[in-house]
Amino acid sequence: MMKPLSILGKAVNNNVIVVLRGKREYRGVLDGYDQFMNVVLKNADELFEGQPVAKHRMAIVRGDNIIYISP
Amino acid sequence: MMKPLSILGKAVNNNVIVVLRGKREYRGVLDGYDQFMNVVLKNADELFEGQPVAKHRMAIVRGDNIIYISP
Amino acid sequence: MMKPLSILGKAVNNNVIVVLRGKREYRGVLDGYDQFMNVVLKNADELFEGQPVAKHRMAIVRGDNIIYISP
Amino acid sequence: MMKPLSILGKAVNNNVIVVLRGKREYRGVLDGYDQFMNVVLKNADELFEGQPVAKHRMAIVRGDNIIYISP
Amino acid sequence: MMKPLSILGKAVNNNVIVVLRGKREYRGVLDGYDQFMNVVLKNADELFEGQPVAKHRMAIVRGDNIIYISP
Amino acid sequence: MMKPLSILGKAVNNNVIVVLRGKREYRGVLDGYDQFMNVVLKNADELFEGQPVAKHRMAIVRGDNIIYISP
Amino acid sequence: MMKPLSILGKAVNNNVIVVLRGKREYRGVLDGYDQFMNVVLKNADELFEGQPVAKHRMAIVRGDNIIYISP
Repeated sequence: MMKPLSILGKAVNNNVIVVLRGKREYRGVLDGYDQFMNVVLKNADELFEGQPVAKHRMAIVRGDNIIYISP
Repeated sequence: MMKPLSILGKAVNNNVIVVLRGKREYRGVLDGYDQFMNVVLKNADELFEGQPVAKHRMAIVRGDNIIYISP
Repeated sequence: MMKPLSILGKAVNNNVIVVLRGKREYRGVLDGYDQFMNVVLKNADELFEGQPVAKHRMAIVRGDNIIYISP
Repeated sequence: MMKPLSILGKAVNNNVIVVLRGKREYRGVLDGYDQFMNVVLKNADELFEGQPVAKHRMAIVRGDNIIYISP
Repeated sequence: MMKPLSILGKAVNNNVIVVLRGKREYRGVLDGYDQFMNVVLKNADELFEGQPVAKHRMAIVRGDNIIYISP
Repeated sequence: MMKPLSILGKAVNNNVIVVLRGKREYRGVLDGYDQFMNVVLKNADELFEGQPVAKHRMAIVRGDNIIYISP
Repeated sequence: MMKPLSILGKAVNNNVIVVLRGKREYRGVLDGYDQFMNVVLKNADELFEGQPVAKHRMAIVRGDNIIYISP
């Protein structure tokens, strides 16, 4: 049995997909996280309705809006 | 009398259906969970309005958006 | 004077109706609950807009979305 | 000066009106409550948009959705 | 510097206006409050979209929905 | 580095603009605040969609609905 | 591995982009923050739907509405 935060811990430095409410999505390298599931992404593509709309060297994405994270 | 989290504990390594607000649904093997009902699913199908839209080797689904989990 | 959770405690193993936001409703045998009013239902019918749409051998329904529970 | 929960305490066994978001309303005898303002009603009429739609021998109404309670 | 709850404390037994989300408003005598900004009003007029729609001898208004209180 | 609440502390007795969700805005003298960012304003103008709609000798504005405060 | 708040700590005195729900965005110099991800911005441009709509010498932006912060 793996706790959700342990899975995040193992995903650090690997690519993850972070899907938010409102049809937003971020794809990048997981750089960190906290107990609220706020995540830090590096070299992240931002997608809206499946289309790339921006690129971020670094982004702190709030856990509140997250639907799921796929490591 | 079974507490909700005990039911989740017994469902680990078994198939579960996780239904979210917004017509999203995940079907996969429960790999873990925490006290917020965040869940880890393996080999999960993602459905939108009842149609499969994606497959995830692993997904951390936030408890916030969950309507129900059917073990 | 009866606390809401004590009423739930007495309703265990009996039929309850759980009405959620979004026109969803579950009718089944209460198997358990916790302090967040998350509930475990057995042999539950799921209704949408008053029509049965699914049957669940077991379902963990999150307390967040509940409007009322009728024991 | 009367704390909101003290007012509820005094209203136990009396008729109360509980008005929720979403145009729902419950009228019945207050049987209990807790610190989250979850309330237990006996012999409660449920109204939607001002029209009676159901009668409940007992209902646990979550505090989350309450706009006001009129004792 | 006056803390919000101290202002409420001084307003007890005086007229206040309580404006909620959803175009609801209550005008009455403040009878009490708690740390969640739940308030007890006496002889309160309820307004919807600026028009009086009901009168309450007493009403416990949840703090959750409040936008502002004008003492 | 200035903590948000310290900035509020320094703004007491000065004019502030408080912008809420739902196109509401308050402009007045900051009289106080608490750790939830609930604020007390004196001589406050209330604006809706940028137009003045009311004037308040005093208003307790809940922090919940605030988007930003500009001191 | 970098915690989200540590990233914010390192971004103090640098330009950041703060994107909120509701198509709002702030671009300015990060002056401070707290554990709720409330942030203080100096010389901040406010954008709505990508267009500049206001300039703030200082703004306290509540963490609640934040989708992401890009340092």
